[in-house]
Amino acid sequence: SALRNEALSRRQKVLTIDTMNANIKKVEYAVRGPIVQRAVQIEKELKEGVKKPFNEVIKANIGDAHAMGQRPVTFFRQVLALCSYPELLDDDKFPEDTKYRAQRILKACGGSSIGAYTASQGIECVRQDVSRYIERRDGGVPCDPDNIYLTTGASDGIVTMLKLLTAGEGRTRTGVMIPIPQYPLYSAAIAELGAVQLNYYLDEDKCWGLDISELQRSLQAASKHCNPRVLCIINPGNPTGQVQSRERIEDVIRFAAKERLFLMADEVYQDNVYAEGCKFYSFKKVLYEMGPEYFNTVELASFHSTSKCYMGECGMRGGYMEVINMDSEVKAQLTKLVSVRLCPPVPGQALMALVTNSPQPGEPSHAQFLKERTATLGDLAQKAKLTEEILNTVPGIRCNPVQGAMYSFPQITLPERAIREAKEKGQAPDMFYCMKLLEETGICLVPGSGFGQKEGTYHFRMTILPPADKLKILLSKVKEFHQRFTKCYS
Amino acid sequence: SALRNEALSRRQKVLTIDTMNANIKKVEYAVRGPIVQRAVQIEKELKEGVKKPFNEVIKANIGDAHAMGQRPVTFFRQVLALCSYPELLDDDKFPEDTKYRAQRILKACGGSSIGAYTASQGIECVRQDVSRYIERRDGGVPCDPDNIYLTTGASDGIVTMLKLLTAGEGRTRTGVMIPIPQYPLYSAAIAELGAVQLNYYLDEDKCWGLDISELQRSLQAASKHCNPRVLCIINPGNPTGQVQSRERIEDVIRFAAKERLFLMADEVYQDNVYAEGCKFYSFKKVLYEMGPEYFNTVELASFHSTSKCYMGECGMRGGYMEVINMDSEVKAQLTKLVSVRLCPPVPGQALMALVTNSPQPGEPSHAQFLKERTATLGDLAQKAKLTEEILNTVPGIRCNPVQGAMYSFPQITLPERAIREAKEKGQAPDMFYCMKLLEETGICLVPGSGFGQKEGTYHFRMTILPPADKLKILLSKVKEFHQRFTKCYS
Repeated sequence: SALRNEALSRRQKVLTIDTMNANIKKVEYAVRGPIVQRAVQIEKELKEGVKKPFNEVIKANIGDAHAMGQRPVTFFRQVLALCSYPELLDDDKFPEDTKYRAQRILKACGGSSIGAYTASQGIECVRQDVSRYIERRDGGVPCDPDNIYLTTGASDGIVTMLKLLTAGEGRTRTGVMIPIPQYPLYSAAIAELGAVQLNYYLDEDKCWGLDISELQRSLQAASKHCNPRVLCIINPGNPTGQVQSRERIEDVIRFAAKERLFLMADEVYQDNVYAEGCKFYSFKKVLYEMGPEYFNTVELASFHSTSKCYMGECGMRGGYMEVINMDSEVKAQLTKLVSVRLCPPVPGQALMALVTNSPQPGEPSHAQFLKERTATLGDLAQKAKLTEEILNTVPGIRCNPVQGAMYSFPQITLPERAIREAKEKGQAPDMFYCMKLLEETGICLVPGSGFGQKEGTYHFRMTILPPADKLKILLSKVKEFHQRFTKCYS
Repeated sequence: SALRNEALSRRQKVLTIDTMNANIKKVEYAVRGPIVQRAVQIEKELKEGVKKPFNEVIKANIGDAHAMGQRPVTFFRQVLALCSYPELLDDDKFPEDTKYRAQRILKACGGSSIGAYTASQGIECVRQDVSRYIERRDGGVPCDPDNIYLTTGASDGIVTMLKLLTAGEGRTRTGVMIPIPQYPLYSAAIAELGAVQLNYYLDEDKCWGLDISELQRSLQAASKHCNPRVLCIINPGNPTGQVQSRERIEDVIRFAAKERLFLMADEVYQDNVYAEGCKFYSFKKVLYEMGPEYFNTVELASFHSTSKCYMGECGMRGGYMEVINMDSEVKAQLTKLVSVRLCPPVPGQALMALVTNSPQPGEPSHAQFLKERTATLGDLAQKAKLTEEILNTVPGIRCNPVQGAMYSFPQITLPERAIREAKEKGQAPDMFYCMKLLEETGICLVPGSGFGQKEGTYHFRMTILPPADKLKILLSKVKEFHQRFTKCYS
C-alpha cells in the first residue's frame, strides 16, 4: 500500500517508542529508576577521578543485604558449593549435614545435576520442605505440597498470579487493590498487564496502619469503572516497615470474603520483625483459625523469597508461592503457564530447600547457623531502632517506628520554594530532594513518589542495611543535608 | 447489586476458568504437556510396583542433557563452587584459572557475593565477556556490551522482546511470523500476549529448508487481518534440526529489510552442528557482511543460552540477548522493563561468563575443558547420525538428517483406522500414537502436533540425548512399536 511504501522510504524503524507496547511505557520502577542510574554514573565518575564532595556512593535504595556487607549463611553456601561440584562430597572440610542436604537435593535432580531442568512447579522434595516449614511456622495448620509453586524470586510469583487474574475490558477490567505507599513491582505489573490499579492508603499517623473503612472507600470508588477482584497486602510492609496485628489481618480477611476479593499476601519479610509487641502472623494461619467458613472459601496466594529475612540471597532468585482454595481448573492453567518457562533456577530452589529445612539441634551445622541468623536479625533490629531515633531528631523529618522489613519511610517537610523549583523542572519534589542529596553527599535513596504517597506529602525510602558505623555516617549526612536544604530554600 | 449478591450466595470463586485471563487459556506447551504428565505418573506407578511391560520411562521429550546423563563441564562447576563458597579459594584442589575466574566474578558482585542483586541488564564484566565472545565467533564483527542483556534462559529474552513488539488492536495487532514446525515457546508467548501468530512452513522435502516464497505467502495472507512486524527464525532448527546456509540467511535478511520486519534469531544451538558441509552462521555476522545498507538499518535481536550446546546447564537459567539497531528510546524502555524483575539469577550469569570466556591454551584447565567439550559434541554428532539411520530403516518413518540442534523430527505414516480412532477420542492422531508408545514401551516423545505441521502429516520429536546404548534400545523399541502399531491398525 501507499502508506507502507511511504513508511519504507522514510526508513523508519519497525520498533519505535510510538509503535511499541503502550502498556510498557506506563511501567515505572523507582527502586532502580533515574536516581539509581545517576548513582551508577557517579560511581564511574569517582573511579575516573572526578572530584566530588564525597568519596563513595552509599546505596540505601534497595534491599540488597549482601551488597551492604551482610555475610551469606555458611551452611547455605557450603551446600550450594557441594551441589555445584559434587566431587567436594569427599572433602572432610564439609560438615556431614551439609553433605546430607546436598545429596538429598542432587538425588531429586535429573542425572543428579542441578544443571537439569526440574518440574516446572519446582522439585517435589523442595516443595515438601516448604510445606513442612509452613506447617511449623503456622503452628500445625496443614499445607499441601501440591499448593506450593517454586518461583524465580517472589516477583515472579506475584506477576504470575496477577496475570491469571487479569481479564475483561473497559468497565469489566480487573481492578487490583494495592496499598499506598506500595512496593512498585505491583504498580509496574498492573501497568504492564493493563489491569486497573486501585489505591488504598495506609494511615501514616497510625504507624502505617491498615483501615478497613479506607479499603471500603477504595473499593466503592472503583466499582463503577472496573471489576475489583484482587486485594494485595504487604506484611511486614514495604516501604513502610509496619507489622500488621492479628486483628487487622482478620478484618482484611473478613473484608475479602464479603467483597469477594482474591487475596495476595506478600510475606517476604516474615522473619524481619523487630519492634516489641509485634509478631508476624501469616494470612494462611489467621485464615485457618477463623474457621471453615473462611478457610474453605477465601482464595489466597501468599509469597515468600530467599532474598530477604536473614538470608538476603537476592541474586539466587529463589521464592515460592502457596495457593489456597484455588479452583482446580485454574490451578491446571497455572501449572501449564509456568511450564512454558520450564523451571525456576535450580540453585534458588536448592536454597529454598535449605531455608525451609535449616540445620536442626544435634546437627553439626546447627550452632553456627543459629549464631549467624541471630546475629543478622539482631543487628537489623538495632539498626531499625537507630534509624528511627536519629531521623526523628531532625526537624522536618518524621519517622514511624521500623517495626519490621528493611526500610524506613520518613515524611519530610519541604520548603515551598523547593517544591516550586522542582515543579518548574518537571520533577516530583522529593525526587528533586533525593537527587540533590545524591549529588551533594553520595547517598542514594528512593523518593516517596516512586512508591506513592498522600497528595502533598513527601517521603523517601531508606534501607536499614548498611553496617552500623556506615549507617550512622549516612544518617548524620542526611541530617546535615536536610538542614542545609531547608535553610537554602526557606 | 442483586447480581453481586446472587454470586455471593452461590459462593462462587473469584478466580475461575471463566473469569481468568482468556489469553492464558489459549497457551499450549507440548514439551511439558499431557504426555509428560502421564510419563511422570507412570514413573510413580513403577515405583509403587505397578506391573508394566517396561522397567523405566525414557524421557526423550525435552532437551535436558544432564538429565540424560551428560556430565557437567568440570571447569564450570569448579568456578561455580568457588563463587558459592569463596572459602574454597584457599583450597589447593582447585586450578589457578578457576580461582582467577571466580575472583573476577565475585569482584563484580555487590559485597563480593553472588547473593547480591546485579545490574538488571546483567553484570557489566559478564556482558563484556559475552561481547568479546560474539566478536570472536563472528570473525571480528564489533559488538557493544551495551547491546547485551543477560536473561533467565533464552525464553526470558524471547518473551521480553515479543512483549515490547506487541501493540495495536484488531487489524493493527502485531503479527509474528514463526516457522512451522516451531518450538512452542513462540506460540505460547504469542497467545499469552494476544499477538497474532503467522505461520510459515519449512519444507520437509528440502531438509526443512526455508523458502522465501513461503515467507512471502505467509506475509501476504496475514497483512489483511493484522500488522506483521516480527520474523522469528530458529537456527539450528528446533524441533527440525536443520542448519541454515549462509545464502538462505542473506535471503531472510533481505526479506526482513524489504518488508520491514523485526528479526528475532533464536541461536541457542549454535555449537550443535554435526552434518558435514553445514556450518553455523550468526544472523549478526551475515547482516554485517551484507554491508551498511543492511547493517545500519535491519533491527535484530539474537538469543543464546547456557542450556544447550555442550554445556547443557538448563537448570541454571542463564542466557543473553543482543539487540542490533534498536531505537534508543525503546532500548531505555527495555532496560526499565527488565529492572522490574531486578536481575537474572547470578549463578546463570556467572556461567554465561564462563561459557563465553572459557579456558585458553596455556591455562591449567584448558586441556580438560577441551577434552570434555569435544567428547560431548562428538558424541552428539554420532547420536544424530545413529538416530537418522535407524529411524530411516523403519517402513512408515521418514527422517531428515539431524544436521544440528538436539532433535530428530521424523514423519510417521499412520493407518487410516488409527487416525479415525484418534479423532473419535478427540486426540490428534500423533498424540494418540505417542500416548500408546508411552503406555506400551515407557518412551516419552512429543507429538508433532505440539510443534505444528502441515495438515495431514504426522511427526514426533525425539531428542538425541540419551546415552548411545540407551538410544539404541530406544530406537529399536520405537521401530518395533511402529511396526506393531501399523499392523494393528491396518
